[in-house]
Amino acid sequence: MGQELGARYAQVRNRSLALVAPLEPEDLCLQGMADASPPKWHLGHTTWFFEQFLLRPQLEAGLQLSYTPAPAAWNFLFNSYYDAVGARHPRPQRGLLSRPPLAEVLAWRQRVDGAVLALLEQLEPGDPRLELVELGLQHEQQHQELLLMDLLDGFSRNPLEPIYAPEPEARFQASSPVANPAENPAESPADTPAPAWLQHGGGLVEIGHPGGSFHFDNEAPRHRQWLEPFAIHSQLVRNGEYAAFIADGGYRRPELWMSEGWAVVQARGWQGPRYWREDGEFSLAGRQPRRPELPVRHLSWFEADAYARWAGARLPSEAEWELLAPQLEQAFGVLWQWTASPYRPYPGFAPAAGAVGEYNGKFMSSQMVLRGSCFLTPAGHARPTYRNFYPPASRWMAAGLRLAQELP
Amino acid sequence: MGQELGARYAQVRNRSLALVAPLEPEDLCLQGMADASPPKWHLGHTTWFFEQFLLRPQLEAGLQLSYTPAPAAWNFLFNSYYDAVGARHPRPQRGLLSRPPLAEVLAWRQRVDGAVLALLEQLEPGDPRLELVELGLQHEQQHQELLLMDLLDGFSRNPLEPIYAPEPEARFQASSPVANPAENPAESPADTPAPAWLQHGGGLVEIGHPGGSFHFDNEAPRHRQWLEPFAIHSQLVRNGEYAAFIADGGYRRPELWMSEGWAVVQARGWQGPRYWREDGEFSLAGRQPRRPELPVRHLSWFEADAYARWAGARLPSEAEWELLAPQLEQAFGVLWQWTASPYRPYPGFAPAAGAVGEYNGKFMSSQMVLRGSCFLTPAGHARPTYRNFYPPASRWMAAGLRLAQELP
Amino acid sequence: MGQELGARYAQVRNRSLALVAPLEPEDLCLQGMADASPPKWHLGHTTWFFEQFLLRPQLEAGLQLSYTPAPAAWNFLFNSYYDAVGARHPRPQRGLLSRPPLAEVLAWRQRVDGAVLALLEQLEPGDPRLELVELGLQHEQQHQELLLMDLLDGFSRNPLEPIYAPEPEARFQASSPVANPAENPAESPADTPAPAWLQHGGGLVEIGHPGGSFHFDNEAPRHRQWLEPFAIHSQLVRNGEYAAFIADGGYRRPELWMSEGWAVVQARGWQGPRYWREDGEFSLAGRQPRRPELPVRHLSWFEADAYARWAGARLPSEAEWELLAPQLEQAFGVLWQWTASPYRPYPGFAPAAGAVGEYNGKFMSSQMVLRGSCFLTPAGHARPTYRNFYPPASRWMAAGLRLAQELP
Amino acid sequence: MGQELGARYAQVRNRSLALVAPLEPEDLCLQGMADASPPKWHLGHTTWFFEQFLLRPQLEAGLQLSYTPAPAAWNFLFNSYYDAVGARHPRPQRGLLSRPPLAEVLAWRQRVDGAVLALLEQLEPGDPRLELVELGLQHEQQHQELLLMDLLDGFSRNPLEPIYAPEPEARFQASSPVANPAENPAESPADTPAPAWLQHGGGLVEIGHPGGSFHFDNEAPRHRQWLEPFAIHSQLVRNGEYAAFIADGGYRRPELWMSEGWAVVQARGWQGPRYWREDGEFSLAGRQPRRPELPVRHLSWFEADAYARWAGARLPSEAEWELLAPQLEQAFGVLWQWTASPYRPYPGFAPAAGAVGEYNGKFMSSQMVLRGSCFLTPAGHARPTYRNFYPPASRWMAAGLRLAQELP
Repeated sequence: MGQELGARYAQVRNRSLALVAPLEPEDLCLQGMADASPPKWHLGHTTWFFEQFLLRPQLEAGLQLSYTPAPAAWNFLFNSYYDAVGARHPRPQRGLLSRPPLAEVLAWRQRVDGAVLALLEQLEPGDPRLELVELGLQHEQQHQELLLMDLLDGFSRNPLEPIYAPEPEARFQASSPVANPAENPAESPADTPAPAWLQHGGGLVEIGHPGGSFHFDNEAPRHRQWLEPFAIHSQLVRNGEYAAFIADGGYRRPELWMSEGWAVVQARGWQGPRYWREDGEFSLAGRQPRRPELPVRHLSWFEADAYARWAGARLPSEAEWELLAPQLEQAFGVLWQWTASPYRPYPGFAPAAGAVGEYNGKFMSSQMVLRGSCFLTPAGHARPTYRNFYPPASRWMAAGLRLAQELP
Repeated sequence: MGQELGARYAQVRNRSLALVAPLEPEDLCLQGMADASPPKWHLGHTTWFFEQFLLRPQLEAGLQLSYTPAPAAWNFLFNSYYDAVGARHPRPQRGLLSRPPLAEVLAWRQRVDGAVLALLEQLEPGDPRLELVELGLQHEQQHQELLLMDLLDGFSRNPLEPIYAPEPEARFQASSPVANPAENPAESPADTPAPAWLQHGGGLVEIGHPGGSFHFDNEAPRHRQWLEPFAIHSQLVRNGEYAAFIADGGYRRPELWMSEGWAVVQARGWQGPRYWREDGEFSLAGRQPRRPELPVRHLSWFEADAYARWAGARLPSEAEWELLAPQLEQAFGVLWQWTASPYRPYPGFAPAAGAVGEYNGKFMSSQMVLRGSCFLTPAGHARPTYRNFYPPASRWMAAGLRLAQELP
Repeated sequence: MGQELGARYAQVRNRSLALVAPLEPEDLCLQGMADASPPKWHLGHTTWFFEQFLLRPQLEAGLQLSYTPAPAAWNFLFNSYYDAVGARHPRPQRGLLSRPPLAEVLAWRQRVDGAVLALLEQLEPGDPRLELVELGLQHEQQHQELLLMDLLDGFSRNPLEPIYAPEPEARFQASSPVANPAENPAESPADTPAPAWLQHGGGLVEIGHPGGSFHFDNEAPRHRQWLEPFAIHSQLVRNGEYAAFIADGGYRRPELWMSEGWAVVQARGWQGPRYWREDGEFSLAGRQPRRPELPVRHLSWFEADAYARWAGARLPSEAEWELLAPQLEQAFGVLWQWTASPYRPYPGFAPAAGAVGEYNGKFMSSQMVLRGSCFLTPAGHARPTYRNFYPPASRWMAAGLRLAQELP
Repeated sequence: MGQELGARYAQVRNRSLALVAPLEPEDLCLQGMADASPPKWHLGHTTWFFEQFLLRPQLEAGLQLSYTPAPAAWNFLFNSYYDAVGARHPRPQRGLLSRPPLAEVLAWRQRVDGAVLALLEQLEPGDPRLELVELGLQHEQQHQELLLMDLLDGFSRNPLEPIYAPEPEARFQASSPVANPAENPAESPADTPAPAWLQHGGGLVEIGHPGGSFHFDNEAPRHRQWLEPFAIHSQLVRNGEYAAFIADGGYRRPELWMSEGWAVVQARGWQGPRYWREDGEFSLAGRQPRRPELPVRHLSWFEADAYARWAGARLPSEAEWELLAPQLEQAFGVLWQWTASPYRPYPGFAPAAGAVGEYNGKFMSSQMVLRGSCFLTPAGHARPTYRNFYPPASRWMAAGLRLAQELP
């Protein structure tokens, strides 16, 4: 068990380093907005997670471990939101942490990696610390995705329109072994089935993770839900379709919007998806031509909801999405997909014990669920029961939408 | 039909005037915050509703009607949020509308009342305009409640702690014929049954308004839902219980709170319910002693949710509440009760046609449902299916909570 | 002495009441912005001044005085900025003070007036309390002017464009016995001398109040200053001239502006004087046609400074203005006139002792001096040495400008 | 001329590089607040100055010059505030410019340096471009000082309290050949004369730069001013003296403060100089013990003004300071010294022609003059007539104060 996990540990941790390889040193501290974090902070925080939740308890328990923790102040700097662990550096000021310099953060990563791998060798199957390591890796994979989304946000604020990598998808190791049609459309049109509405008769269904393998606490417990008959579209909404919404006055017609969303549209002057620029779209590959056949991305929930209303449809609930996921095209590895469901606990939900219990449960207000995964999601990190969540006005994540509708 | 409705029309409209009778002239323009509106504005806006949606269409249709509409600018001033009707005066600046003076607004009310009553006499049963009048009256009753809540907010910002009325509940004509135990506790203890957990076995249930009588669009359609077994407490949480939560560090323990709520607690320095002041509580009767046996009120959803977590329970979902409503004490006429349910459309929801379709549907994001009614709610304005809604940080409404829990 | 002052006391105090006579009750609480105060507050504050600085010390000294002070809370409500007197109600929230109602404030005024007049009868010439009464009257006159300026600001935010009075100047009792040419231009053209540059050879001059009669502390001490030769224009800049500045791109050419002012122009979207609206100008008489021959008003210092630069001139220093004041047209009773001088203490300046020492001295940073008086200034309240002051971005006062230039 | 200037050019430009040598790569992009700029931006902006005002005009004039300008977008990025030159990147977002990377900025510096040095060789004495080069060097020296002040601000926001250099003063090449007593107090006490009040009889004096050598436009023209008799203290106020002010309630007594300053004290919670921390002081050498005998620094004008009032004195006017500068200790090379003078143009002031005319003149509102120079000021950059200026609430500059008083 430990060995196999050790190999996976090394692979996941190294991928983080590979992601920052193309960056300039100054990029490591780039924080475009309060919601985002600089790459160096992601590197430090994911390391802190292992030190804080895995290594420190060993040391405190008096275990022999050839590991010296980072300076106490680092605990303050690299805690993200775990109140149980203590005070933390304000998130909007992470970009001001030019120190510790990258070299020190990388050296810390190495020391932590050494200690974790040494510990892993000693663990018997069933040891709860194995689960903590797995959680730490899943956590790091989430931050790998975030690191790239945050970087895109930061780069988008630079008039030079920097290029992260000419073909980022190769570097991203997207979750599907099949080439990502969103990024490699040239290869796919022939293979793509015709768009369709996939139907489901509703009734008493079950959703949620059944247990027995890794999942986050918010995916459980598996539980029953009653659904009326519905249909979900097999494909994601595309740039060309979204352009038609805009051309039809989508951003100027309040009747299409939630009141809260309309206020955001006015206040921020939205006129299209976040990274549309003239005829192109800004991306990690710099500004690229906008192709009508590709899924539209970097939309807020408000935009997804308004588009669906304009199209005479609605967003799917997360239960509907989960039930039909096996039949959907582009369910994984392309874009996160907004649902109609507010992010709330499942019946019988109980957060994990201890500080890691702050992982998901405390964010269950004023956010909407997204399902699937995106082209930045690391391989092996997608599940039909996975519940992602963002506030309805957020747009910097790789999010798109697909339509749903009631059936008679 | 028209006659009966005419009597009801006169009664509801007069009650608005009765509510402002104890006020000083300057109070009529008092707006304590952007979320609230001055009393005069409420008087004008409820009148505008009848002019805009009932009388103007008659005039535009060439109907003989001895009514001259208010100046065009008034339409701009007294529109609340109906985008389809045109631009409107910014809500945070309603307190700056010292003109039109009260006398002119009251004269307008009279002219509108005359025209509506005259129209009513001509309408046959089944005429859709009867429904519009009923909607306008329900709308006015909502604003009667709001007027008093907004006034309390405005008065709460005055160091003189003004008194609206010594015994406001008499004036409020609370919805229950039974004396309001929240306001007249001396009369009630003997009659009060012992507190209890009321159980329900769950299963496939139906909620929502079945139709056939007045209801808002958001209460429909009636639909099925699957529930797991649950229990709801028969009574509202009381001041004394809430004080124990505070004494136990309720406002200093982040693990009890949604992350978003904890940020609000920090930013606004919350240490207790909104109107608690030293040992008393500010109210429409001025500062009053705080009585432990009365239901705690003027809480945000974040506080209700944190209290429930602290108490080892949770808030009821709106379906759970609706199912057990007939058995609950204090279900109506005391305090609105926060539920665990985000405010979203029922399956198959369709907003009403035309501008009145903006009434409810466009607010279905980032708000939480409250159920029941409160001691300020006008008689006849409460229903088991009624869905009230506010953002989770709002506290100026007369809101409290009751607990729920899973059953095995 | 006391008798004559008593008559003056009654006259000044009554004028405040006359000023609010045309108002609707709701207007009494109107506060358009944080810098302004509602009329009722002005009535209360000017009364507080006499109670606080004149009557209370008598009572505290055990003097027999048939006067009972206002409730302690009123001291908190009606203190403007006297830190030495204690805490005070936040200025931006004065509009929320719907209570105490006007009737109570007026009753308080009467009680204070009775006590002050009774006290005045007992005072011998030379008694320092006579000076305090005079200071209180001068203070009230300042607030009379402010009350009207603040009211104009509040009315300007109402789309109905309320009218305070059709011929406000009659009510204002402007300081000059001669009809105000700004308001009655029809009567004046014939009498108006041709515009001219008035010259002064500079040298060692004296400015400041010489003492021996009432003046504010900031006007003293009279002191020497060295001036180079200069000229000041005999007349104020007119609407027509200012329109030429606008037409020449005045608000779009950063080279004409102080950097700080240019930022304000951008941030607030200034395109002309504050109350210009289409072809008219909003005023206390409602919207009026804009007449090119009238002095331009409601300009910030930034605009006055930019205009002067555009015109190839500059603003006069306060010393230059004071020296030539006797020869200037429109020096008094038309508009306050921005100068090039920051508001700072004269050499040897010492603030008055006690709380009234906070009257002027503590405002001597980041403000600019204005000289003269305006058509709202009460009769007898203007002096060549008077130093008025406002922040450079303020525009709600009746301020204009005249040009100056260096002489070779 | 060109040769000598060429040597100086190389020396000044190289010093900028030496200043950033001790930094980590991420520090190059560190911007602690909107008022400050990252080191890399300073390097780019000072280079842009030479390209924009010296090299581009040559190219536009068709002159043979082996220089290719930077990409057009860089002009947008590195313009600071020259409106005449075009739009510019918003100052608060300079920290987001992770690109262009340092290497590219340094390469640009080299290309510009080569072109400027080549041009210099061709210029005859009296060529106006020589003056432009000199202005560019003076400009760069100002930014060298700013770079370090800004860096200190950025570092101060890092809980790790980074150290720029253990003995920064050696690196700073302070303007005085004598060791800086503020930084090397051990060497100086013996040599320090006793503190004293230096007197001046006032009268008609002259201040301002007489011309004939380099000076900024705002130092001219030399002109007459009348002064009353005054005295200035020979030394700067020290930490120990300032601590006594604090201990005496200096930050809690509104009567000591300008009203505007008192509001800042309340809003920002000031309780001492900006970098005082517990018993120490944060500096470019990290946190250091606070030594009572060293001059107090990093004060706002409001604090300097309040301290002077508390001490029964006042700040000197800039004319007073300039007249006695030759006799003052610590006049140069220690700390900038706040004066009582608002920053306004001298009589007859005319800004330089062209875009460089935006250098000083447009900042002449709402700022106060500081005189002298500080320990970060490059050698040769100090003059008795030099007018530095900052808003009265700014504290991140190395500013202190000395006292003055009237003489009878």
